[in-house]
Amino acid sequence: MAKPSTPKGTRDFSSQEVYKREYIKRTISEVFCRFGFNPIQTPSFENYQTLMGKYGEEGDRLIFKILNSGEYLKEISTEDLQHQKENVLTPQISEKALRYDLTVPFARYVVQHQNELSFPFKRYQIQPVWRADRPQKGRFREFYQCDADVVGSDSLWQEVDFVQMYDQVFSSLGLQTEIHINNRKILSGLAEVAQIEDKLIDFTVALDKLDKIGKEKVVLEMKDRGISDASLAKLDPIFDLKGDFLSQLTLLENLLKDSEVGVQGVEELRFVFQNTQELGLQTSKLVFSPTLARGLNYYTGCIFEVKATQVELGSIGGGGRYDDLTGIFGLKNLPGVGISFGLDRIYLCLEELALFPETKPNQTQVLFLNFADKESAICMKLIKKLRQKSISCELYPKAVSIKKQMQYADKNQINWVVILGENEMQNDTLSLKNLIEGSQKNITQAEFLETISEIIES
Amino acid sequence: MAKPSTPKGTRDFSSQEVYKREYIKRTISEVFCRFGFNPIQTPSFENYQTLMGKYGEEGDRLIFKILNSGEYLKEISTEDLQHQKENVLTPQISEKALRYDLTVPFARYVVQHQNELSFPFKRYQIQPVWRADRPQKGRFREFYQCDADVVGSDSLWQEVDFVQMYDQVFSSLGLQTEIHINNRKILSGLAEVAQIEDKLIDFTVALDKLDKIGKEKVVLEMKDRGISDASLAKLDPIFDLKGDFLSQLTLLENLLKDSEVGVQGVEELRFVFQNTQELGLQTSKLVFSPTLARGLNYYTGCIFEVKATQVELGSIGGGGRYDDLTGIFGLKNLPGVGISFGLDRIYLCLEELALFPETKPNQTQVLFLNFADKESAICMKLIKKLRQKSISCELYPKAVSIKKQMQYADKNQINWVVILGENEMQNDTLSLKNLIEGSQKNITQAEFLETISEIIES
Repeated sequence: MAKPSTPKGTRDFSSQEVYKREYIKRTISEVFCRFGFNPIQTPSFENYQTLMGKYGEEGDRLIFKILNSGEYLKEISTEDLQHQKENVLTPQISEKALRYDLTVPFARYVVQHQNELSFPFKRYQIQPVWRADRPQKGRFREFYQCDADVVGSDSLWQEVDFVQMYDQVFSSLGLQTEIHINNRKILSGLAEVAQIEDKLIDFTVALDKLDKIGKEKVVLEMKDRGISDASLAKLDPIFDLKGDFLSQLTLLENLLKDSEVGVQGVEELRFVFQNTQELGLQTSKLVFSPTLARGLNYYTGCIFEVKATQVELGSIGGGGRYDDLTGIFGLKNLPGVGISFGLDRIYLCLEELALFPETKPNQTQVLFLNFADKESAICMKLIKKLRQKSISCELYPKAVSIKKQMQYADKNQINWVVILGENEMQNDTLSLKNLIEGSQKNITQAEFLETISEIIES
Repeated sequence: MAKPSTPKGTRDFSSQEVYKREYIKRTISEVFCRFGFNPIQTPSFENYQTLMGKYGEEGDRLIFKILNSGEYLKEISTEDLQHQKENVLTPQISEKALRYDLTVPFARYVVQHQNELSFPFKRYQIQPVWRADRPQKGRFREFYQCDADVVGSDSLWQEVDFVQMYDQVFSSLGLQTEIHINNRKILSGLAEVAQIEDKLIDFTVALDKLDKIGKEKVVLEMKDRGISDASLAKLDPIFDLKGDFLSQLTLLENLLKDSEVGVQGVEELRFVFQNTQELGLQTSKLVFSPTLARGLNYYTGCIFEVKATQVELGSIGGGGRYDDLTGIFGLKNLPGVGISFGLDRIYLCLEELALFPETKPNQTQVLFLNFADKESAICMKLIKKLRQKSISCELYPKAVSIKKQMQYADKNQINWVVILGENEMQNDTLSLKNLIEGSQKNITQAEFLETISEIIES
C-alpha cells in the first residue's frame, strides 16, 4: 500500500508549527483589537453564484467547486453531457464553492446582515482560503488570510490607521518591511492623460505584472493590448520617478495636472504620507510605488502592498480602498477599505530569519513513570491535583521498561519525572528527578504538591 | 437582486458569537494541554481515496467531494457520461474531498509522519468538518470537532484519563453531564452468546439507533437484518439491566460467562469505573450504557458518549478505543483511543442555560470624536500612545454630527469618549466623558495618558 499523503499544495502542521502559527495569529489579532476591530467568521464555502465572476476570469478558474451531493446527474440533459464542456456542466453539478478570499464573503456578510450592523463597521477575519493555483515556494492551495476592513466611511484617516497597523504588527513580529502605496485614482488619471480611459483594465492588469516580468515585457503586453506608442510615451515617467515620497508626488502631480481624478489621487496620498510622518513608524517604511496596481478590480482608491526587506518572497500583505464592493450584492454606495496579512508567507519570513520565540514541542511539564496499577492509582491522584493547579502532566500509560519511559520524557522534552515505585509507595514518598540537571530528590507525597508548584512557578 | 445568503446548513458568526466560540475552544484546549496533549492540524481536504470507504456507505454519501479543476471532462469516456451514474463519474471528476471527521485524517497523519513521531503519541485537533447531512437543530453542514487521541498504547489508564478530561472540560464550562460508557467487547460477547457473530455489524448498527427510534423498532430492524427470535431473546436483558454501575456489570458478566471477549469487556469497564470512583468526578456522572453502540465500525474497546443532563440535544461528545485504525493506511497494530467534543452543540447548551461569561460586542474602550483634520491629527497621536499601552481605541473616521458619533459609541458599547475640539486644541486640553455614568472631566492632554490608564486598569 502506498504511504498516504496530503493533497498537492496542502500541508499538515506539527505541534511545533501550530504553536508558531498561533503566535502569528495572536500577534495580528491583538493589534486588530487594539485598533477597534472585532472578529467575525463566515462559512468555508459560499454559494457558487456568490463567488463566481468576482475575481476575473483567472479567479473563476482557480475557485474550488464542490460537487453536488446525491443524484447530481439526474437532471442534466444528455446533450449537455455529450458536449463535454466544463463551463456548461460545472454550474449544473456544483452549487457551492470554497472561499477564495475573505473580502467577497465579507461583502456578502455586510449585505446579508446590514440591518443588524452599525456603520462604520469594523471587522477582522482570520480564516483559511483555497485556490487551485500551481503550488510553489510561499504559494499553497490552502492558506490563511488575516483581514481587517472598515465599511461605511470614506475617511482617509482609515488609510493612515492601516499603515500604523501594518507597522505595529510587523514591528511586534520583528520583521522589517516596506509598505508600498499607490492610488487607483492616479492610475485612472494616467489613463486619462494618455487617452486610454477605455483600456484602464488592460493597463492595470499589465502593470500589475511589473514585479514578475519587468518593464520591457509589461510595455510589450500593453502594446499587445492595443495601447499606442504615443500613449506609452506619456505613461513612461511612472517607471522612473526620482526623489523622496513627496518629490515624486509633486512630479506626478505635474504630469497629471489635466486630470481631476489623477490630482485627487495625488492629494490623497499626500494626506496619508504626511500624517504617517507626523505619527511616525516603528520599523516599517512607507514607499510610494506609482507602478503598484493590485490585481483585483474592485479597488478604487489607495492600494497597499507590503514586502519584507530581508527576505525575497513577494508580498506578505496587501489591501486597499474599494468604493462599491457591496454593490455586487445589491447594497450601493458603501465605501470600504481593508488590508490583509498573508499568514503563511509571514511564517516563512520569520522562519528564515529565525524570529520565532522559542517553543517546546510538548507542553507536558511532569511525567509520572508507570510501575504497576497500584502505584499508578496513587500517581493519578497526584496528577489530578497537579492539573488543578494548571500544571501539564501525565502518567506514562504502561509499565514498560524505565529506559523506554525515560526516552519518552527525553524525546518530548519533559523536564521533570516522578518516580513512585513499590518502595516509595510503602513509605508514602516519591522521587522527583530533574532531567536537565540530572538531579533527584526524595520527598514525601504530602510535600510533593507544594514542592513541584514552587519549582515550576519559579 | 435577491439578498445573498450562506449555503444551507452553514452559518455566519458575529463578533459576539466568535468570542463565545473562542471561549469554548480555549476551555477545551487548556484542559487538553494540562493532560499532555499538543495540537496538530491537517488540511481541510484530503485525497478522495483517503476518506472514501472509511465511514460506511452512509458516510461515503455524506462526504463533500471537490470537483477537479481545469478540463476535468476531457478524459472521461462518452459511455461513462451517457450512463449518468454518479458512482462511476464521481471518482473520475473528483480527486479531493472535504474532511468528514478528525479521526481518519489523524490516522493518515500518523502513518505519513510515523518516522518523525515518538509513541505513545498524544495530539489534539480543533478544526471544522463537513457533512452533507440534512440540517436540523444542532446539526450543521460545517461544524467544529475538538478531538484528543493517544496512539501507541493499549493502557486502560488512558480511558480513565479521558473520563477525567470530559469531567474537567464540562465542569469548567458549568455544564452537568452524563458520560455514558460501554465496551465493544461486550457487544461482541453478546453476539457470541446469541450466536450471531456473523451479524455483529447488523446488530450494532441497529442498536445504535435505540436513542432515536426506541427498543421496539430496533428489535424489528434486527429481525429484518436476519437475527432470529431465539437470538433476540438472549440479547433482551441488555435493554433492561437494573442496579448501579457495578451490579449491572455483574449481571452482564454472568450473561457473558461463556464468552472470553465479553468477560474481558466487563473487566475493562470495571477497571475504568473503579479508578474513576477513586479519583472522583467534579460534576459529571459515569453511566454504564450496555446498549450504547456508536456508529463507527473502527471501535474495538471502550466507547463513550456524553449528554448534557439539562438540555435535550443528543450527544455533545463521544469517542472510544480503536485497535487498528492506522491499519487502513498500512501501519498495523497501533492501538489508539480518543474522544471528541462537539463545539456547536456545546455552544447551544451553554446558550440555552445562559452559561456564557458576559462578553462585549466591541472591544473598543475609548472613542475619540472627530471634529476636523487638525484636531484629529492630535487625537491620532494620543491614540497611538494608548494602543502602545494595549488599550483598544479608535478615532471616529469622519467629522459628522456629534450626535451620530455618540450613537456609534452607544451602539458599540464603548464606555469612554474623548472630546478634543477647537477650544480644547487651543488650550492643550481634552474632555473625557464616561458614557455609563454620564460624567465628564476636563484635563490637559499631558495628563490624559496617565488618567485614562488608571481608570481603565482599575
